[in-house]
Amino acid sequence: MTVKKKDLIYEGKAKRVFSTSDETHLITEFKNSLTAFNAKKKGSFEGKGSINLKITTMLFDYLKKNGITSHFVENIDDENMVVKKLKMIPLEVVVRNRAAGSFSSRFGLKEGSVFENPFTEFYYKDDGLNDPLLTEDHILTLKIATQNEISKLKVLSLQINQLLKNYFRQIDINLVDFKLEFGKDATGEIILGDEISPDSCRLWDSNSGERLDKDRFRRDLGRVEESYRIILSRMTNLRNEK
Amino acid sequence: MTVKKKDLIYEGKAKRVFSTSDETHLITEFKNSLTAFNAKKKGSFEGKGSINLKITTMLFDYLKKNGITSHFVENIDDENMVVKKLKMIPLEVVVRNRAAGSFSSRFGLKEGSVFENPFTEFYYKDDGLNDPLLTEDHILTLKIATQNEISKLKVLSLQINQLLKNYFRQIDINLVDFKLEFGKDATGEIILGDEISPDSCRLWDSNSGERLDKDRFRRDLGRVEESYRIILSRMTNLRNEK
Repeated sequence: MTVKKKDLIYEGKAKRVFSTSDETHLITEFKNSLTAFNAKKKGSFEGKGSINLKITTMLFDYLKKNGITSHFVENIDDENMVVKKLKMIPLEVVVRNRAAGSFSSRFGLKEGSVFENPFTEFYYKDDGLNDPLLTEDHILTLKIATQNEISKLKVLSLQINQLLKNYFRQIDINLVDFKLEFGKDATGEIILGDEISPDSCRLWDSNSGERLDKDRFRRDLGRVEESYRIILSRMTNLRNEK
Repeated sequence: MTVKKKDLIYEGKAKRVFSTSDETHLITEFKNSLTAFNAKKKGSFEGKGSINLKITTMLFDYLKKNGITSHFVENIDDENMVVKKLKMIPLEVVVRNRAAGSFSSRFGLKEGSVFENPFTEFYYKDDGLNDPLLTEDHILTLKIATQNEISKLKVLSLQINQLLKNYFRQIDINLVDFKLEFGKDATGEIILGDEISPDSCRLWDSNSGERLDKDRFRRDLGRVEESYRIILSRMTNLRNEK
């Protein structure tokens, strides 16, 4: 398939989205910028877009082999990904395996404590409102999704969590938590969209406990670029071994 | 029954709780103080404790006649209420009929918009954490309550909402939202505790829309005491009519 990049239709914090010559597809361009705290903190490094595109591609490939469909179609180059056009659901679905970040501070829990059962959280994707936490009743009341869709999102996200945990374990990474976004295709089916990368996951080295994700940027821990490259390199080695 | 007030065992923002000569009962003393924003704002007026005790008593009586048990036993005087001792569940259950307060600001909704279906929210009763909103998964993960208990709390709270809405409608008051607290008795049964008063409810005059509750204090609208007295007086008149 060869679709051509047309107009910029949306610019997000880490990606630009373009219409294409095929109206059922879009192109997402992975940017080098890094943002945190609802874009109050900004940064970037050369090659970040390309690293995240490669990581996302390998993870979407892995999920597809394990029965989870995403919007991914193919890559045009190092920074541009052709994806199926979805009607995005304005939710960020967070899956948590261990306490970290906002969950730890909200409930006064030590970072790293393992939960007996992983669970999902929903946040309203609305920068103007600062992405507030939503209960299921909020989602229903605000008519963001139906009860069936909520259940589908939870089941899918927990399945993806199990698969990603297994994947990352092979490269000595603890998957602490991560964020997913979903949309509906033309038939109304719920499909995984957006990206899966060190921007959207907390990835801790299983041996040293070192953070190899966007928290290095958020918390000024240094060696941001190196950490993203470590994740990519371990993933690439794993693929080449197989 | 005659129980005697013994030691102060807990002082809250609006009530003091005492042990009594009977270890299965407590005495709660309704204070004149008013607080808002997790006690960052403080005030009081003479007679507030007594007004809230009377209002709470009439509402607990009304609920009891309609099949909802509370911890209320009897009043000793204008400010002291004998209650069954419960093991309190550290949750504030909020029921919302219309958008107002934190819900409006969180989601950018006009105050007063009516929800198609009333719904409950759970907040973690922990001043140190600033009473954060909880999802059901949070409640389970933090082992605050079981799934059965959550379901029971939701059903009970929505039943109480229906009864209170009907009650307040008779005295030309719109019940916008309110907060409940529950505890477990010696047999493990979940029982309504705390109070129901203009401190814990948003009560709007059905005709003028005027607020007759603690928002007058929170938002410096004036005539705080008068509003509490209006609620008590309409309730007393209703009781006397019957």
